[in-house]
Amino acid sequence: MYSVGVDIGGTGVQAGVVNKDGKILFRKECFTNVDSGFERVMDDINNLVRDLLKENNLEIENIESIGFGVPSFINKKGLVTCVNLGWYEVDFMRALNNRFKESKVYAENDATVAAVAEAKFGSMKNKDIAVMYTLGTGVGGGIIINGKSITGAHGMGSEMGHTIIGENYFNCNCGNNGCLESFCSATAIIKHAQKLINEGNESIILDMVNGNVEQINAKMIFDAFRKNDEVAVLTINRFKSYLAKAMANMINILDPDVISIGGGVSRASDIILDGLEDLTRDYILYKKEEFANIVCATLGAHAGIIGAAFLR
Amino acid sequence: MYSVGVDIGGTGVQAGVVNKDGKILFRKECFTNVDSGFERVMDDINNLVRDLLKENNLEIENIESIGFGVPSFINKKGLVTCVNLGWYEVDFMRALNNRFKESKVYAENDATVAAVAEAKFGSMKNKDIAVMYTLGTGVGGGIIINGKSITGAHGMGSEMGHTIIGENYFNCNCGNNGCLESFCSATAIIKHAQKLINEGNESIILDMVNGNVEQINAKMIFDAFRKNDEVAVLTINRFKSYLAKAMANMINILDPDVISIGGGVSRASDIILDGLEDLTRDYILYKKEEFANIVCATLGAHAGIIGAAFLR
Repeated sequence: MYSVGVDIGGTGVQAGVVNKDGKILFRKECFTNVDSGFERVMDDINNLVRDLLKENNLEIENIESIGFGVPSFINKKGLVTCVNLGWYEVDFMRALNNRFKESKVYAENDATVAAVAEAKFGSMKNKDIAVMYTLGTGVGGGIIINGKSITGAHGMGSEMGHTIIGENYFNCNCGNNGCLESFCSATAIIKHAQKLINEGNESIILDMVNGNVEQINAKMIFDAFRKNDEVAVLTINRFKSYLAKAMANMINILDPDVISIGGGVSRASDIILDGLEDLTRDYILYKKEEFANIVCATLGAHAGIIGAAFLR
Repeated sequence: MYSVGVDIGGTGVQAGVVNKDGKILFRKECFTNVDSGFERVMDDINNLVRDLLKENNLEIENIESIGFGVPSFINKKGLVTCVNLGWYEVDFMRALNNRFKESKVYAENDATVAAVAEAKFGSMKNKDIAVMYTLGTGVGGGIIINGKSITGAHGMGSEMGHTIIGENYFNCNCGNNGCLESFCSATAIIKHAQKLINEGNESIILDMVNGNVEQINAKMIFDAFRKNDEVAVLTINRFKSYLAKAMANMINILDPDVISIGGGVSRASDIILDGLEDLTRDYILYKKEEFANIVCATLGAHAGIIGAAFLR
């Protein structure tokens, strides 16, 4: 039997038909027309899913479940607030249930969805305690214990990106100072490289953007790191030092079997993982003990569809 | 049917016979003769338990289980390292099993044991996700999910005292900087008050110790806080600000139903809880949502025996 997974993002929505082995058989996508408002976006998603099924001669009644990943948290009443989508306390779960009356529908935060996928078919397969960090524009998180996602008593857990792990030279978007996200997101890395360059440090990154620091992206910084560019080395080392603190904090709290790092930043997995275990060991309490394997995610962008299809 | 709970501390060992309602029926204690070495201390514990049973006409065969709380972590091999007891990788579980062949024996870190007790009979009763912080000389932690203690894949979890939550003016005993324990233990509070006094700030605390700052204890600081002493107010406010960050970090990660604060420091529960919820709300991501009740532990020093008796 097949399930459908839908990955709702700020720019596009991806839907896929997934078999029980976690393989995406058919895929379809559409733009997220944020300006058209919540109900219209939900109509588009409805059409996307139904077109995907129709084009592949599948009946919605024969689909086991339809799961949705959203770039936000869903509270216990089913309400979603998501600045990127322009949604403020919209009744997301009701909107889904109204449109997909024939199906079982489930929804979770997108980082939790990615963690579900990685725990079932990817880098965290067959592990009892599995924790995922998604490092992208922001930092998300997912916690899976014995195959079940842990989102807490009020649905707002596994937001490790906003745990406070130090003091930073700027405040996080959430208003606090020292959040993991403000040290380890792509945004944070870019901001730090820009800062060093603006302070007068020379860097080949500046050549990559023809002198326009606003054009710097995370990939350029990792590329420059490979060429031993000083700004890049300082930036990536700082990033890894705080990432290690975050890994150690999680080990000191949940002591997982595995921690997986996903999201756009994790494409530079060789740089991220190099020496990260030793850095982490310095920050944990029981330094002589075996601790979680720290790995990078393996399902890439597909994790959103696959994980959503396996929400239960 | 009864169980036995044994609370092993650096100065004394307390054992109790506990009924299924969590009531301590009989109690007995002995000194922890640390200098005599591990095997001798274990012999003393063996005698303590057997004397306790004999004096109350109970047969060890009729006891459901004997549980032990230790001020340390027990690794998956059953080895314990505990500086306070002078134990370095001693085979604790084997030593227990050798001495209590007739019984089922269980052992856990003492903060986890306290959490088990509070979750079963005290401040965290009937809650699915319950987290405890014990604030004493150090800071310990216990996590209970659906009635089961979570100590991680390698047994070293729930050490929230050593999660890094900021930058501090001195390093933690564990060697790192910025651990919760270095902000929120009794030791940390005392150190901060001493610092302010040594910097020349006037304080009634100094009168309480006849000018000898080495004699300051946490109770004096809370007492001085009640009298609006400036050093005490600065110290307690700093303590509460970091405690709120720790609460918020836990809410952002596990989003518990309840967080309970125990340990010696929690005796000043009125001061600790006053305004703590609002301080915590500032640091969580979803500030408009309902979040964990933050309470103080209710079982006091008995939690060690009661929790140990209910380890399974």
